[in-house]
Amino acid sequence: MENAAQRRILITTVPFGEVDRTPLELLEAAGIEYLINPLNRKLREEELAEMAGAFGVLIAGTEPITDRVMENAPHLQLISRVGIGLDSVDLLAAKRREIAVSYTPDAPAPAVAELTIGLMVSLLRHFSLSDRRLREGHWHRFMGRRLNKITVGVIGVGRIGRKVIRLLKPFGAKVLANDLAPNEAFRDEYGFEWAEKERIYREADLITFHLPLTKVTKHLVRTEQMMLMKPDAILINTARGGIIHELDLAKALEEKRIGGGAIDAFEEEPYNGPLSGFENALLTSHMGSMSEDCRARMELEATQEAIRFLKGETCIGTVPQTEYDVQSQGL
Amino acid sequence: MENAAQRRILITTVPFGEVDRTPLELLEAAGIEYLINPLNRKLREEELAEMAGAFGVLIAGTEPITDRVMENAPHLQLISRVGIGLDSVDLLAAKRREIAVSYTPDAPAPAVAELTIGLMVSLLRHFSLSDRRLREGHWHRFMGRRLNKITVGVIGVGRIGRKVIRLLKPFGAKVLANDLAPNEAFRDEYGFEWAEKERIYREADLITFHLPLTKVTKHLVRTEQMMLMKPDAILINTARGGIIHELDLAKALEEKRIGGGAIDAFEEEPYNGPLSGFENALLTSHMGSMSEDCRARMELEATQEAIRFLKGETCIGTVPQTEYDVQSQGL
Repeated sequence: MENAAQRRILITTVPFGEVDRTPLELLEAAGIEYLINPLNRKLREEELAEMAGAFGVLIAGTEPITDRVMENAPHLQLISRVGIGLDSVDLLAAKRREIAVSYTPDAPAPAVAELTIGLMVSLLRHFSLSDRRLREGHWHRFMGRRLNKITVGVIGVGRIGRKVIRLLKPFGAKVLANDLAPNEAFRDEYGFEWAEKERIYREADLITFHLPLTKVTKHLVRTEQMMLMKPDAILINTARGGIIHELDLAKALEEKRIGGGAIDAFEEEPYNGPLSGFENALLTSHMGSMSEDCRARMELEATQEAIRFLKGETCIGTVPQTEYDVQSQGL
Repeated sequence: MENAAQRRILITTVPFGEVDRTPLELLEAAGIEYLINPLNRKLREEELAEMAGAFGVLIAGTEPITDRVMENAPHLQLISRVGIGLDSVDLLAAKRREIAVSYTPDAPAPAVAELTIGLMVSLLRHFSLSDRRLREGHWHRFMGRRLNKITVGVIGVGRIGRKVIRLLKPFGAKVLANDLAPNEAFRDEYGFEWAEKERIYREADLITFHLPLTKVTKHLVRTEQMMLMKPDAILINTARGGIIHELDLAKALEEKRIGGGAIDAFEEEPYNGPLSGFENALLTSHMGSMSEDCRARMELEATQEAIRFLKGETCIGTVPQTEYDVQSQGL
């Protein structure tokens, strides 16, 4: 038996429908009622728990969709994630409560990979720092390094890591990569080398992380790992907050044990922590997926999935069993 | 007849010998006396005129080496430019005074091209701006564009422009390029399109300039050209100060007639002008060539040339006749 709440959609991720109004037009054409997150920022667990009760579908960002949230959402039938990471969704609770979960894993990858390359060049050449300094009246010609002369470590060679390696190709960096499921054909095509994480920590001049956030990857890089790194090593996290431990990174920057770090995803967002005190840090506001085309595709795919679900059609973005295994086995 | 002054070298470009001491060691091994610019910044014409009198060779940066400077340097026999641009050297005066001029045109190209790609991504994704904002306590997820979705105009397809096009390849941008001497083989290999400058101004979303500074290219882009551009067009100048007219650019940013601009080379350096008031500007301290490897190569090549000259060996970096033609014909 369907009720009105079950057919109503709460869109929690913001901005939504700004680049391209199509998702909203599709909902309107289908006669589906929706509400866009009125707080216009990432919701906290209790805020979402309070709001979610009157909705059957969440078109969701990275806000915590916990068992408690679901307990407060008796009509919830589908969580349609705009994006790839599922660390924010308690998949096991969803399964127990027979709430379906879908996502759009391919859509954000090109935008995240391209941002990552830009952040690499900025840290290697200190150009965002030079811009800040020049605005403060200081002219200094910073000496930098070129990708061709360094070793880049890529940890996680999935949808995004692969694209990073592709974009890096003409820059000529030596690439050491690590993945749980090494793809040999891809390796042969791009001529990089598979390596253990510890070797990457020791040998790479720049290390970029393209991993989901799980019990294993949370705080993957702490002081212990940073101690292995070169004193001018650069770390980049455009994946999920907390893969690199933020306070340990701040300490390493403070003690000049590493060379720099670009962080786009934080454990708590909006970020307001000590990293902003370091001039060799580069801090961005979770903008990995924020290119018009990728954002539009993510929003469209997540909305189309919600419409399919509400029309009783077959879902095509259903989260695969492996994602549930990650959470149940703490992988 | 050689005198002591003729064998003495003034190194005006700074920093020098910091990344790699080899050039200084070569001079010392050859028993050549040298002085590194004691002011540790770009010299003004009158400062150089005052200093140059006691030297036979200048290992030079971009400071003005004018007829007046040469008049004050009776022992000067060689100007060995660290880098590529010759706009700072009065070649015709040098020829009249029988002063040889050499340069290192290939060395800086990889570093300039790589910086240019980083600046493109920063402006398209607003990441340097996000970093500035976050440090001021503002969290905002800027929406950006991806290279794959835009048209990039490359004006000047010489040593640097070609490298920019190569690095851009996997990003998948549509490239419109302009050069006085179009290389068809290169075009076929990289699949871009030659276009008139005016078409590039009208159609490109991002335009990057890789031109020498000459009478023709000085102030090439003024209000008149910017009026042709898209309202969100991005301009990048990592070539020479003044190819894009700085005050006109500031006015266009002020009136929101264009989308943004990255400027690495200014008409007067250190730069201290109105562009730093605009948040969609990205301003760097003439760092195009400032990667350790390129800088080391430039310094080494310019020093080896000076040593060859002083030993009476054949010079290999002699500036070609075409560069003199540019200045004499005002090309």
